[in-house]
Amino acid sequence: MAVYTPVEQEDLLSFLEAYDLGDVTAFKGIAEGVENSNFFLETEKGRYILTLYEKRVDAGDLPFFIGLMEHLAAAGIPCPTPIRARDGASLRELNDRPAAIISFLKGLSPQRPKVFHCSELGRALAHFHLASSTFHLKRPNALSVDGWGALLEATVDRADEVRPGLAADISEEFGHLMDAWPANLPWGVIHADLFPDNVFFVGERLSGVIDFYFACNDALAYDLAICMNAWCFERDNSLNITKARALLASYESVRPLTAEEREALPILARGCCLRFLLTRLFDWLNHPPGAMVTPKDPLEYWQRLRFHQGITGIGGYGLE
Amino acid sequence: MAVYTPVEQEDLLSFLEAYDLGDVTAFKGIAEGVENSNFFLETEKGRYILTLYEKRVDAGDLPFFIGLMEHLAAAGIPCPTPIRARDGASLRELNDRPAAIISFLKGLSPQRPKVFHCSELGRALAHFHLASSTFHLKRPNALSVDGWGALLEATVDRADEVRPGLAADISEEFGHLMDAWPANLPWGVIHADLFPDNVFFVGERLSGVIDFYFACNDALAYDLAICMNAWCFERDNSLNITKARALLASYESVRPLTAEEREALPILARGCCLRFLLTRLFDWLNHPPGAMVTPKDPLEYWQRLRFHQGITGIGGYGLE
Repeated sequence: MAVYTPVEQEDLLSFLEAYDLGDVTAFKGIAEGVENSNFFLETEKGRYILTLYEKRVDAGDLPFFIGLMEHLAAAGIPCPTPIRARDGASLRELNDRPAAIISFLKGLSPQRPKVFHCSELGRALAHFHLASSTFHLKRPNALSVDGWGALLEATVDRADEVRPGLAADISEEFGHLMDAWPANLPWGVIHADLFPDNVFFVGERLSGVIDFYFACNDALAYDLAICMNAWCFERDNSLNITKARALLASYESVRPLTAEEREALPILARGCCLRFLLTRLFDWLNHPPGAMVTPKDPLEYWQRLRFHQGITGIGGYGLE
Repeated sequence: MAVYTPVEQEDLLSFLEAYDLGDVTAFKGIAEGVENSNFFLETEKGRYILTLYEKRVDAGDLPFFIGLMEHLAAAGIPCPTPIRARDGASLRELNDRPAAIISFLKGLSPQRPKVFHCSELGRALAHFHLASSTFHLKRPNALSVDGWGALLEATVDRADEVRPGLAADISEEFGHLMDAWPANLPWGVIHADLFPDNVFFVGERLSGVIDFYFACNDALAYDLAICMNAWCFERDNSLNITKARALLASYESVRPLTAEEREALPILARGCCLRFLLTRLFDWLNHPPGAMVTPKDPLEYWQRLRFHQGITGIGGYGLE
């Protein structure tokens, strides 16, 4: 929740000379996103977000992210449209950082998602997957099963500082997932970080999906597992089965799951829990004291993982 | 540069039930101000700033600040208008903090003010002083000459950590100002913190004055001295006399200074330098390591102070 790189007015104005956006009427740093610096930018032509990509984002991935937003916006998915400069480029440089201007989306993020939010999300996610299937660039998911070994190694020795027994739990789960991880599921470009903060609603209508900076190629149903974990659990880490059913059924109303995807859902949900548990554990163990970002509780995902370990089929999530 | 108090959507919506602003279409924390939490709020009716007052602001002063903005906005000064709820109150409570909604102002803050900015500022400041003269509430300036003794006491022992000899310099200057501080100058409500970040421009036109949370009753010319120090010095801490002349002359085109004010200007400018030197020095010596706010350099104002110590009359600032 911070602006990392301040932008001086003169630098902004010379940056904007490359665009056809008219005069600036407002410019404010916004407290959104933890990876990049974001600014609310208003000009005579409209309202935008200016993003400066900080070092946690690999500059080599930016054409994938920017291209994906362009592709999805053109397909009618409510996501930010990158704005091209006069020379056609939508990725430029400002303050020695890669920078892009994207369209501003209206809406609020639901901090406590209700059933109707989950329904809207399921439909939007299925449309996203249909639209992203024709996107031509590829980006591997560094945070899927192949990447967890390194994260485990970096965290396991100190995991018991967070909870006694956690080191054994995550090691065992990792071993199980290495054996049981499904291959050959329908594959495509997934969002991979579709938490409620990254989805906007105006009233009861989904108005925007943002933050494509974890998007990658992976099993489509894995994205659904991420959403179920992020949207359908209550604050006490119990699954709200009405929300899960709403999410899955509305997804299937647009893109029905295959039998293999339905069968794989519990194991995908476990993998998703291990992934967020490990990255949060890493941040928890390594965040500098007094840092601007409060690390998220890794044990939230440990509790959700334990829930999914008891689920044997999609019936556990409210579907037949 | 941070949002201190996050606001949950449900709390926002129930807070807004007291107002006639229609449905919310956007809400984002903004990285503006270091004392309070500020949010960009858009509804069907328009665009606003929601401010939650954090503990550094004395809640007892809020009726003065909010009332002053209302008074000035009604007089045509381009400043935020507090929005009243249906019951007529513009100061309410959200997340256990005093909170207010004010109108959103367009414009950009000049980070490197030019001569035309100083001209615009001078006129606007004079109009501000004329309009504020009929405001009925009072608030003493805790950071004027009577308050400096306590700040000096809290910083002098460690001042030489910042620069050898600084303790002696500030003690001597304080003694001089105690003797020479002018009485009986034209008095009224001053902004008292009119740095470039608190003034917006659209193109070459001043479009807004914000952040009234240091406003108080004091000598009007002291406000002019604050502006001269904040707007007319170059980055090497030398005075740009063209900017100073532009500021003072355009102020006088609306509200001519009295002979006493003109004569007092160098001493007021010195007092202003000591005030910002002392508060910055205090923050510099007391800021916790790793804190979110980078303290400002106190020595900037030490250098400006040394400049004013060599000035004997208003001619030193470019006026006859």
